[in-house]
Parts: sequence; structure tokens; C-alpha cells
Amino acid sequence: MPRLRLDIAYLGAKFAGWQLQAHANAPQPRTVQGVLEEAVARIAGQHCRVQGASRTDAGVHALGQVAHVDIPQGREQVDWQLALNGNLPKDLAITAATLVPDDFHARFSSKSKIYTYSLWCSRRYVLPTRRFFVWRVGPLDWDAMDRAAEELQGRRDFESFRNQGCAHESTVRTLFSIRRKPANDLEMVFTFHGDGFLKQMVRNIMGCLVEVGLGKLNAQAVATIRDGRDRTKAPVTAPAQGLTLQRIFYEEAPEISDFHAP
Amino acid sequence: MPRLRLDIAYLGAKFAGWQLQAHANAPQPRTVQGVLEEAVARIAGQHCRVQGASRTDAGVHALGQVAHVDIPQGREQVDWQLALNGNLPKDLAITAATLVPDDFHARFSSKSKIYTYSLWCSRRYVLPTRRFFVWRVGPLDWDAMDRAAEELQGRRDFESFRNQGCAHESTVRTLFSIRRKPANDLEMVFTFHGDGFLKQMVRNIMGCLVEVGLGKLNAQAVATIRDGRDRTKAPVTAPAQGLTLQRIFYEEAPEISDFHAP
Repeated sequence: MPRLRLDIAYLGAKFAGWQLQAHANAPQPRTVQGVLEEAVARIAGQHCRVQGASRTDAGVHALGQVAHVDIPQGREQVDWQLALNGNLPKDLAITAATLVPDDFHARFSSKSKIYTYSLWCSRRYVLPTRRFFVWRVGPLDWDAMDRAAEELQGRRDFESFRNQGCAHESTVRTLFSIRRKPANDLEMVFTFHGDGFLKQMVRNIMGCLVEVGLGKLNAQAVATIRDGRDRTKAPVTAPAQGLTLQRIFYEEAPEISDFHAP
Repeated sequence: MPRLRLDIAYLGAKFAGWQLQAHANAPQPRTVQGVLEEAVARIAGQHCRVQGASRTDAGVHALGQVAHVDIPQGREQVDWQLALNGNLPKDLAITAATLVPDDFHARFSSKSKIYTYSLWCSRRYVLPTRRFFVWRVGPLDWDAMDRAAEELQGRRDFESFRNQGCAHESTVRTLFSIRRKPANDLEMVFTFHGDGFLKQMVRNIMGCLVEVGLGKLNAQAVATIRDGRDRTKAPVTAPAQGLTLQRIFYEEAPEISDFHAP
């Protein structure tokens, strides 16, 4: 069957995350995968499994999610992007739909991913235009956060920064870089580029770095948490709404340029 | 009474514009001025008139609206920004609150204003993150739009670009500049800097420029519309949601730098 690659953007607020959930006796919550599969079925005339690259959590946004789906023979000529967008709610959009070789797998073919996390650094107000996309925190010590971030870059065991429910066998990942760049006077955008991420790994790292920025931890303490391989010793998980899946690369990890907040 | 300057940001979608409305026998719609006056009254202990600089229409956003309000004697020491933000809904925020001299008037002291208007130039999809802030149009001829925009810059009579209900006696205004800058591959942001704007003037100019971009009008036709001083001969008004009041200047009009979409 022909294979289609879908590039996908969504607002996380009203989705219970990417992944379809198994509920024996309860209604299925609204998931990105579920809404997409319904739209694909209306066009394909049959159910087709949509396989996503990243299982984003409830509330997490995406500008560059990728999925693949095998469509029935003879449906290659459909304008899948227009057809799907005509059947999708407005908080979910197909930004590209491309026929790909059979061996393309949205998840297993990916080489690296970029997430951004936005912090709003004023307790006096949040811009109404930004409130759905930021975590509101106090003023932070950026230099201390930069030093702590260095302890988390490179090839590491991220056991301390994954949450329960994580099914991966290995907890070793390579975090190529953690960068930060101001989006405006009060908003700082952190960019995480890695070859893969464990469940809630970016949000757990961000929660840890914010504790550093508030002066509650230092870089040495972060290294100790990292080496302890014990999630219960690490700080809180940052809220989902500050996180955006920006891009998934299927070629070798490039030198990344700047990513903006959504 | 001490006079307070308020700098204000809001999402336009759920407001019936800035201005309180006179309805004899109907409930008052939700206006920015009305919601602000209620919040001020809770802190001041009495009603105080909030005077805005720009009477933005229903659906128009603001990042840099300005207002003034005279507060009761003895309330100067209140932290008005924090107090108001604690009493305001999340689509409205006070970004600054400053005591100003008695002769500061939000509307009459202003020297110039900047509005931006965002166009989304694809009929295939709109990014969910941008859909509340753009007008979705087809691919446009930017060069033709630039030529037409030149016909509207400078000191002009903008009678053809004001809507009914406009109370201004003179329809002559100076439009210092119309600039455009891409926000991303598919979004173009137009920046309008002028010494004042008639009712729906930016939206009417934008509606006209889009017709030019679509090839339905040329720069000469725009000049003819301009000189005709007849609103009924001009193209449609662009939708409110693409428009944002970005900034109001109280000093002489500066050389402006780039403004971003909200």
C-alpha cells in the first residue's frame, strides 16, 4: 500500500496528547492520533493506522510533528493535505502530505528532534497572546541555568529525567544542545535538540533548570541528580503548555539554527 | 486627583471593542473599557472613567493600547498594575501602570500610532497557532501591493477609507509609512505608522491592498479610489482579527523599527 508522510501542527490544550488510549469501559479521550485516524478513514473509506513520530503529552503543542499512514491502493492521487484539512478541527492542521518510500517510518527513521520550551519571566503580568504557550516563573539567574544545562548535554543516562510509564529499554540519549534565546523582554525560549527523548524528559529538565534559576539548586546538584538515576530525587515536571515539538529530522543531525516560540 | 497611565494588552476575540456602548434597553456588551472600569472601581472604591487612546473595534487585538484614569486622592501608593491584573480576566492585562502629570491625555496627547495587520498566504492550511491573528488570503503579488501602498502614504484625505460612524471632523491624516515583513514562509505582516487613524481605516486600506495583490486593482485604481473620496467605491474591509494596535507614541514620531505579529 502507498505510504504517506504527514507533517502536522496542533494546539495542545484540547487534546489528551498524541496517542490513542486503551480504555475498556470509558469513552476514548480526544487525542491527535484519534482525530487524525477518523479524518483519514473518511477519505480512505477504511480505517488506517496513523503512526506518529513523537507521543506528545496532553497540553503539549506541535509545529512539526510527523506521522506516516498506509493508504489504500489507488488513493495516491487524492490531494491528501486539502482533503484532510477539510475534515479536521481548527486546532489541528496538515502542513504537508507527501508520498514516501515503504521503508520510511515516522518514528524509527527519525534521527533527531527539536523541542522548544518557553518561560515567561514576570510575576506582574502575562501577555494575553502568550499565556497558552508559556510557563510563568519569577526572574531567573540565566548564567546559573547555562552552567547547569552543560551538565545535561552530550550522551548521558537520563533515568533521573524520565517519568513513569516510559517504555523505553535504554535511558541513554544524546542531547546535542540546550540553547536559549529571548523572544522579547520577558520571554525566554529554550531549544532542546537531541537524538531522542524519554517520557517528559524535556519538561523534567526544564523543571530542574528553573530550580537552578531560582537559586534552589546549583550545577553541581544537577550533576548529582543526573548521576543518581532516581527520578524521585529530581525537581518538579514543568507544565505541558510551555512545550512545543518544533521539528523532526530524518537526516543526520544538522547544525541547528534558531527556533522561535509558537 | 492623581492621574494614572495604563498600558494595556488584550485579545480582541471576546470583546465588543474598546468602547462602552450606549444601550437603553439591552445588556451592555463586554467591552475593554467596561471591564477595566469595573476592575478600577473594585480597587478605587468608586467609579472612575477610563479614557482610552484608540477605540479599537470588536475583534481587534492590542499589545500597546494606552489609557488614563484619575484615581482617588490617597490611592497613589497602590500597586495598580498588580491590583488590576488580579481583578482582570486573562484576555486582558496591564503591562504598565504609571503616575503621570495632569495634562497627560491618552488620546489627545498621542503623536502617532502603529498598527500591524497579518495576512496568511495559503489556502491549503493555516497554522493553528496563528489562526486567531491572521486574514487568510490567496498568494499575492507583493510588488503590486508595494506600488499601491505608495499611493496611500503621506498627508492625505482618507475619506474613501473610513467607515460610517466615524465622528472625526477632518478626514486628513498623515500615514508616515506602510511597511511589510515576512513573519514566516506564509505570513506577511504589514506595519502602518500614522499620526492618527479614522474608523476602520487600516482595515479598509488592507482590504484595498489585498485586491491589488490578487490582481483585481492596480496602483492607479487605488489612486482613483483615494481621490474619489467615496467609501462606497472602495473594496471590502479586512477582517478585524488580523489587526493589532501595537504602540502609541507620545513623543514626536520616531523612525520606527520592525514590529512583529502578536
